[in-house]
Amino acid sequence: MVRKPTPEDKFSFGLWTVGWSARDQFGDATRPDLDPVESVHRLAELGASYVTFHDDDVVPFGSDTAERDRILERFKKALADTGVEVEMVTTNTFSHPIFKDGAFTSNDRRVRRYGLRKILRNVDLAADLGAKTFVMWGGREGAEYDAAKDLFAAHERYAEGIDTVAAYIKEKGYDLRIALEPKPNEPRGDILLPTVGHALAFIAELENGDIVGLNPEVGHEQMAGLNYTTGLAQALWSDKLFHIDLNGQRSIKYDQDLVFGHGDLFSAFATVDLLENGFPGGGPRYEGPVHFDYKPSRTEDVEGVWESAAANMATYILLKERALAFRADPEVQEALEASGVLELSQPTLGDGETVADLLADRSAFEELDVDAVAARGFHFVRLNQLALEHALGAR
Amino acid sequence: MVRKPTPEDKFSFGLWTVGWSARDQFGDATRPDLDPVESVHRLAELGASYVTFHDDDVVPFGSDTAERDRILERFKKALADTGVEVEMVTTNTFSHPIFKDGAFTSNDRRVRRYGLRKILRNVDLAADLGAKTFVMWGGREGAEYDAAKDLFAAHERYAEGIDTVAAYIKEKGYDLRIALEPKPNEPRGDILLPTVGHALAFIAELENGDIVGLNPEVGHEQMAGLNYTTGLAQALWSDKLFHIDLNGQRSIKYDQDLVFGHGDLFSAFATVDLLENGFPGGGPRYEGPVHFDYKPSRTEDVEGVWESAAANMATYILLKERALAFRADPEVQEALEASGVLELSQPTLGDGETVADLLADRSAFEELDVDAVAARGFHFVRLNQLALEHALGAR
Amino acid sequence: MVRKPTPEDKFSFGLWTVGWSARDQFGDATRPDLDPVESVHRLAELGASYVTFHDDDVVPFGSDTAERDRILERFKKALADTGVEVEMVTTNTFSHPIFKDGAFTSNDRRVRRYGLRKILRNVDLAADLGAKTFVMWGGREGAEYDAAKDLFAAHERYAEGIDTVAAYIKEKGYDLRIALEPKPNEPRGDILLPTVGHALAFIAELENGDIVGLNPEVGHEQMAGLNYTTGLAQALWSDKLFHIDLNGQRSIKYDQDLVFGHGDLFSAFATVDLLENGFPGGGPRYEGPVHFDYKPSRTEDVEGVWESAAANMATYILLKERALAFRADPEVQEALEASGVLELSQPTLGDGETVADLLADRSAFEELDVDAVAARGFHFVRLNQLALEHALGAR
Amino acid sequence: MVRKPTPEDKFSFGLWTVGWSARDQFGDATRPDLDPVESVHRLAELGASYVTFHDDDVVPFGSDTAERDRILERFKKALADTGVEVEMVTTNTFSHPIFKDGAFTSNDRRVRRYGLRKILRNVDLAADLGAKTFVMWGGREGAEYDAAKDLFAAHERYAEGIDTVAAYIKEKGYDLRIALEPKPNEPRGDILLPTVGHALAFIAELENGDIVGLNPEVGHEQMAGLNYTTGLAQALWSDKLFHIDLNGQRSIKYDQDLVFGHGDLFSAFATVDLLENGFPGGGPRYEGPVHFDYKPSRTEDVEGVWESAAANMATYILLKERALAFRADPEVQEALEASGVLELSQPTLGDGETVADLLADRSAFEELDVDAVAARGFHFVRLNQLALEHALGAR
Repeated sequence: MVRKPTPEDKFSFGLWTVGWSARDQFGDATRPDLDPVESVHRLAELGASYVTFHDDDVVPFGSDTAERDRILERFKKALADTGVEVEMVTTNTFSHPIFKDGAFTSNDRRVRRYGLRKILRNVDLAADLGAKTFVMWGGREGAEYDAAKDLFAAHERYAEGIDTVAAYIKEKGYDLRIALEPKPNEPRGDILLPTVGHALAFIAELENGDIVGLNPEVGHEQMAGLNYTTGLAQALWSDKLFHIDLNGQRSIKYDQDLVFGHGDLFSAFATVDLLENGFPGGGPRYEGPVHFDYKPSRTEDVEGVWESAAANMATYILLKERALAFRADPEVQEALEASGVLELSQPTLGDGETVADLLADRSAFEELDVDAVAARGFHFVRLNQLALEHALGAR
Repeated sequence: MVRKPTPEDKFSFGLWTVGWSARDQFGDATRPDLDPVESVHRLAELGASYVTFHDDDVVPFGSDTAERDRILERFKKALADTGVEVEMVTTNTFSHPIFKDGAFTSNDRRVRRYGLRKILRNVDLAADLGAKTFVMWGGREGAEYDAAKDLFAAHERYAEGIDTVAAYIKEKGYDLRIALEPKPNEPRGDILLPTVGHALAFIAELENGDIVGLNPEVGHEQMAGLNYTTGLAQALWSDKLFHIDLNGQRSIKYDQDLVFGHGDLFSAFATVDLLENGFPGGGPRYEGPVHFDYKPSRTEDVEGVWESAAANMATYILLKERALAFRADPEVQEALEASGVLELSQPTLGDGETVADLLADRSAFEELDVDAVAARGFHFVRLNQLALEHALGAR
Repeated sequence: MVRKPTPEDKFSFGLWTVGWSARDQFGDATRPDLDPVESVHRLAELGASYVTFHDDDVVPFGSDTAERDRILERFKKALADTGVEVEMVTTNTFSHPIFKDGAFTSNDRRVRRYGLRKILRNVDLAADLGAKTFVMWGGREGAEYDAAKDLFAAHERYAEGIDTVAAYIKEKGYDLRIALEPKPNEPRGDILLPTVGHALAFIAELENGDIVGLNPEVGHEQMAGLNYTTGLAQALWSDKLFHIDLNGQRSIKYDQDLVFGHGDLFSAFATVDLLENGFPGGGPRYEGPVHFDYKPSRTEDVEGVWESAAANMATYILLKERALAFRADPEVQEALEASGVLELSQPTLGDGETVADLLADRSAFEELDVDAVAARGFHFVRLNQLALEHALGAR
Repeated sequence: MVRKPTPEDKFSFGLWTVGWSARDQFGDATRPDLDPVESVHRLAELGASYVTFHDDDVVPFGSDTAERDRILERFKKALADTGVEVEMVTTNTFSHPIFKDGAFTSNDRRVRRYGLRKILRNVDLAADLGAKTFVMWGGREGAEYDAAKDLFAAHERYAEGIDTVAAYIKEKGYDLRIALEPKPNEPRGDILLPTVGHALAFIAELENGDIVGLNPEVGHEQMAGLNYTTGLAQALWSDKLFHIDLNGQRSIKYDQDLVFGHGDLFSAFATVDLLENGFPGGGPRYEGPVHFDYKPSRTEDVEGVWESAAANMATYILLKERALAFRADPEVQEALEASGVLELSQPTLGDGETVADLLADRSAFEELDVDAVAARGFHFVRLNQLALEHALGAR
């Protein structure tokens, strides 16, 4: 049986996940709206330590200030009562029709200004609630048609928007970092900053990029056929893995938002292995909350919603145990060695070696026994089978 | 009828394209090897201005220095005879078994050193031949299995390798820039630097990244379901579009390397529109050669090889004429205006406007008629239909 | 300029296409609901000859009989006033929560019975309105999870359902045929009968399969990376192409429902070439209406809705002219000959030739000059370039 | 630890799997050719009961009759020595240049006749060796370009070819059935009979279709984003699952041919669950050999080849144990019941109920409490989590 979650697990849930009423592109809602306060209580009981939300998840779009204050007061009370904390806040700039062509990159400047204001308001709220991360998913920043967008101007405006928000955070002295969430498509035909890579590259061009990083989501990378764990690794290498969104996706198709592990299970094992064990040869680690961004399937009733929330945590716990056992296994350590995995940490040039030295080293090229070196078997399949058997608890 | 290519078209071909003997994963060669010297002559006749090549395309792997010199001498003569120039050189670090786990990121350090040497030798050749761009496609840098690679170390070694080559170029004073070529997979299960975005992000971390940019290939981006033109745009925005590889791909599948336009034709129109007209509101332009990296299908004989080479250029010329007419059409200009495409160049904040000013502007948020703004129709479909009809020569 | 549609074009539109209020998975409606009666009038003005609809598009779910009759009366008047005919009717068994696990294959038998009743009621309406085709898209017949469905029972129930409806049509003597619409996924993780092939195979097992055929949609096949035109061809070969759904899709991702031609344009040319010219060597033809099943993008207002409807027809007309010119071009006929395209109609065995005769024909095997035959170039690239240049109106 | 394979496991390997010398699209062979006789011995030691092969795997293309006989004699001796049997034989009609445009559907009639002869020769060999299944993968039957193939004629020729081979088998009285192997693409842009569905539909049109069924491969279906287990289910429902090809694939990309389970692991569990437990409510079962069609990665040496062969079997054994425990678990049985999985076996119409009866049943429609039925939660996520925990050995 799977052990219960504990605070050390740092599990976190978006309120929009359990709160999704299951209205989709082709059908009406199958579940009633959930009261966010009830969700906080239920998630606490299930073992979550944190919740996250979009402004509109808690305070309906268009609420006036008084109504907003009243709702937030009640919400803060639920947090206090349960001990659940808000670790991340995000802003909905994709549901309302005004954002149909994006917020930061809408062709309509009035929309861009309105979007910026909506976000800035929410930055204040995030700081007020003690959140450490401010996620920005630009789901409508993009196009279906190549002629519809000046793509240079779009990147300029996107950068202007993010830089403005980041500058505001600095100015206010908030202990808050921005995490961009890439996605390749849906609801737009092509979304700007479609992958971990594009978002990292974008951040490198920002003026205030030092407090801007990433929030990669499993399914979003897999929708582009990319390896999620490799994406996390490049983000870590760039010191930009600020937050994560775990869920499940089965191949390249619409955004499924399944329970973590209910998509590509073996890939989920690799992700947990990286998160819990770090790189084999050491390096930067992810230390933040384990955040789930999934949707309880439309076939589920409210009871099924909580079953699905629990399933995310149960799967993570299970894979964590397996990953720890995997790396602790001496046979695995030996196999990593045999496959040269640890050898890769060794620089290609020797300590103090110059290019001239390398060029002068005949053993590296002119006198290398190319055929002998080429004949080396890397035994990656054996190593992978060890991982598979550990994942399956068969060792 | 399609006009003939001219030097102004700056058409360029990889010698490995027409030279492919059509051996594939499931079958034997269907065509004889071509003599590179003959290829230079034939491409010149067809209207190409430049050729490019991997070292092994011209000089067989393992040739000794004398043999290499003899071959290169004859090759240079063909260049001189035809006036064809070498604008780009690249190195094959993927075909020989020694590179089966990569060159810069092989788990075997001996391979990494050997690969670096092979590349450095070719940098000299590139400079000697007057090439301006040195392309690096790390086709074997990657893995099939998540446990097989320390992904932090892999990025470290990759960066070490590129930085070493870049430092060597600077040290030698060569007028040469490196262009990395991203690809998501094939021949490895997951290739490092899988997209334009990942490669741009990687370059941003390099010490000598100033002379490192990109060589994006149509099919490679489309294999990840990404929009090639959008990729070019982000590369231009980052001032890193050093070279291009045009070809054709039909949806997400194996790397097809079809003739340019024989894949997603309307997307090819958008690409040519960007290359020839630039962004609607201005911005950086690509000024380099129009390089084709395709494979004549395995069903073609040698005559079909030259037909296919000509087809690349004919399609480009056609789409160029259509793209120029598209932008010159007053109805299109009016439609761009109506869709707000030109409005996107306008900064979101006014000249000198601060965040405080924005926050104080009640017309931007509190008093904005949200429903009225949301009701605006962008007429992107009409604009796209105009593009389609221009692409089809129907206006 | 593009000529205007005429009745000979047989253009047909689903009322749900122009009527879509642009509510999607991530956002609220951006357009008001359209009155179906107005849509009939507007489509008539634009040149459409037919409309089609789901029951719920015209009569809201749950309307009582009196309300239903009143609405239908008014709708029939619009048809009479405009001369627009209803060529196809379909039933919505996917939007209401009761169908969340499917209609014919819901695990809940009450739902299956209810779904059957809803469909039968609509069959009567289809016959009453003179429709010739009854489309069935089982968008919710499927699963996200492998354990959730007994897949043998699911196929049994699906067959029972379709066979029951078909038997009812025969019993009533309606001049109506059923057309199944395949789709691989969305809104379910895996939809039953995911492609043209699966649906054809399913029909072959039915008792009343003689009046059951297909309604393939461009985007649905392309969401599985399949060639739409090849799918149409196999359906024609099996005498089962009863109806078509034209639209646009850009690669493997969520269901985009773009305007026809706004996705893979060159593939759209091939589709029109098959529809208008038939197979090069003759064979069965599609003679039904040219039906568009697309969605006006969420960025469009009502004016943009009608622009997009017109765009579907304009693109079809344009590609039709190009396809007719393509096949009429003597150079193309010569190229088809050179590529052996017409030779494929010749049976492999000679007239009256037995297997024994073939085995005895030494010229076919033992004495065949294999290398000489293998050396033949098929010149498919040249043929494709001719198609491309005709598609672009450049010949 | 994983138990050793036994004859009851009916494990079978293609000789081309372990025998692959790792030459791929972008690189040269990294391993020596294996002697098929050695492979038979090694596979026997590892626990395999059967081998399968293409003609060219054992007898090089173009060998004369004497050489062929000598080679086959030696091969038969290895079989006799080890007790390994040949359960399936297939023919290579894709590697030699003569087949570059296909065998049964080549535009060149000489090729079609030659291909038919090569296949018929191999049918005799299959019968002689006691094989029960004759697999046909038409890897080159297809096209890259829509104009290159008369698709009606192509289906006609394909059917003619298969029917001729089937007729020959019947005429000879061989105890042999044909199994077609679908694949969507690679090495052709679009391959005919791209999925399980298309092949089933094709068989339904054959004259001798009674002895023609399917050999679905995991990776081939997944390359179209389709669910392999669902494909097997439809093939079983049509009584056409004659053989299986197990391997691994990670998302939609080139054909990876990984070890079984090294792709989508949870989907592999579902497949084994179906193969070993059958449908939850009963129905047809697959009783044939468990055949692996994979490729040892190019990074492996010969030792790694045998490690990878063993890994296929180990994974299957492990998943089999887990699947048996899954179905035997009373909690799972209860969950299947709660999710209505077993209810789906119940016909929608009652025993003897007519459509008229259904139409008269007001409880089914007019008086059904639609909202109450719609509110049912199916608890599929809970069921799937049970499957996941059993797959992981955590229950």
